[in-house]
Amino acid sequence: MHKPKSTNITWQAGGITRTEREQVRGHRGATLWFTGLSGSGKSTLAAGLERRLLERHCATYLLDGDNVRHGLNRDLGFAPEDRSENNRRIGEVAKLFTDAGVLCLCAFISPYREDRARLRAAMPAGDFVEIYVRAPLHICEGRDPKGLYKKARAGQILDMTGIGAPYEPPDMPELVLDTELGGIQGNVDDTIRYLETHGYIQSQT
Amino acid sequence: MHKPKSTNITWQAGGITRTEREQVRGHRGATLWFTGLSGSGKSTLAAGLERRLLERHCATYLLDGDNVRHGLNRDLGFAPEDRSENNRRIGEVAKLFTDAGVLCLCAFISPYREDRARLRAAMPAGDFVEIYVRAPLHICEGRDPKGLYKKARAGQILDMTGIGAPYEPPDMPELVLDTELGGIQGNVDDTIRYLETHGYIQSQT
Repeated sequence: MHKPKSTNITWQAGGITRTEREQVRGHRGATLWFTGLSGSGKSTLAAGLERRLLERHCATYLLDGDNVRHGLNRDLGFAPEDRSENNRRIGEVAKLFTDAGVLCLCAFISPYREDRARLRAAMPAGDFVEIYVRAPLHICEGRDPKGLYKKARAGQILDMTGIGAPYEPPDMPELVLDTELGGIQGNVDDTIRYLETHGYIQSQT
Repeated sequence: MHKPKSTNITWQAGGITRTEREQVRGHRGATLWFTGLSGSGKSTLAAGLERRLLERHCATYLLDGDNVRHGLNRDLGFAPEDRSENNRRIGEVAKLFTDAGVLCLCAFISPYREDRARLRAAMPAGDFVEIYVRAPLHICEGRDPKGLYKKARAGQILDMTGIGAPYEPPDMPELVLDTELGGIQGNVDDTIRYLETHGYIQSQT
């Protein structure tokens, strides 16, 4: 569907490389992709993680529905081809932030395995860290921070993930965070440990 | 309906603000928009500036045709509506980087005043710094780093800016860099001075 149309473009080096940016920053760039049901705790965990990373002076940014749907993707609706293009653009922006040496936290329901696999495949190995934010539907529905489940049960949202549309859990995510049992700080601790152990950020010990 | 078991979870997204990011980094986020003819020296100056900013440990990124046209905007061609959408998306991405507290350098011919005015208007005051990279057409054509002018003169590119399509110089750019007369280092010095004087980065003196 999206064939490269651009012509008359030559690649030139000479600028700053990603490695140079990362060396100066003291940490790697990466896309930390939080996936899970609405109300599973993606945004809360991402915000908690970003705060912890900022305290370590890491370069970070959080992409979510708020800053993407109202800006870059405001021309897109929720039809299948629009969802696909929404996903593609978010992936491209996350790639740019990653190339910039930023730890780019992305919090999107992103219910389909294939979509997430496409995001991963579009990036160099290790750049895409899939974090499954796991909570049972009844817990998420109990939280219902945006009132979406209530609307879905009332028939006002037909394709609500978990109700009228499926959520496909990751097969092999880099990390699983359980927000029914684990607290925010414990989950953020686990993520920090993962990032340290795998060389994304420097260990503080 | 079930309630969350954990008592230490507050389901609110207390996200990081731009100001917090900027305070940690020690500099402002901004979009530094380099406009000028092909071959005027936009990319060279932007690369030189990025290097200087990186030496000061600023968070930076360079958006140009290379990393945007091949990725985010690879579905767009060069028809008027595609150019307009190309411009819009670049502006939205630059806004995200600026919100991330990054000094986002953008090097695009961006020949039309109206397009640049739209980018400026879409950002908070002071976030958009227009840098006019000025060099006469015959100088740019003499440089012709991508061989585009040659193709244009041979009739292979019909809408080449400066040949078959107009370039509209900025009326009131924040900065004018003359690359016919000024050297790269001098131009980068001038830009650094502007950024210091106007509080984007800290003065080193």
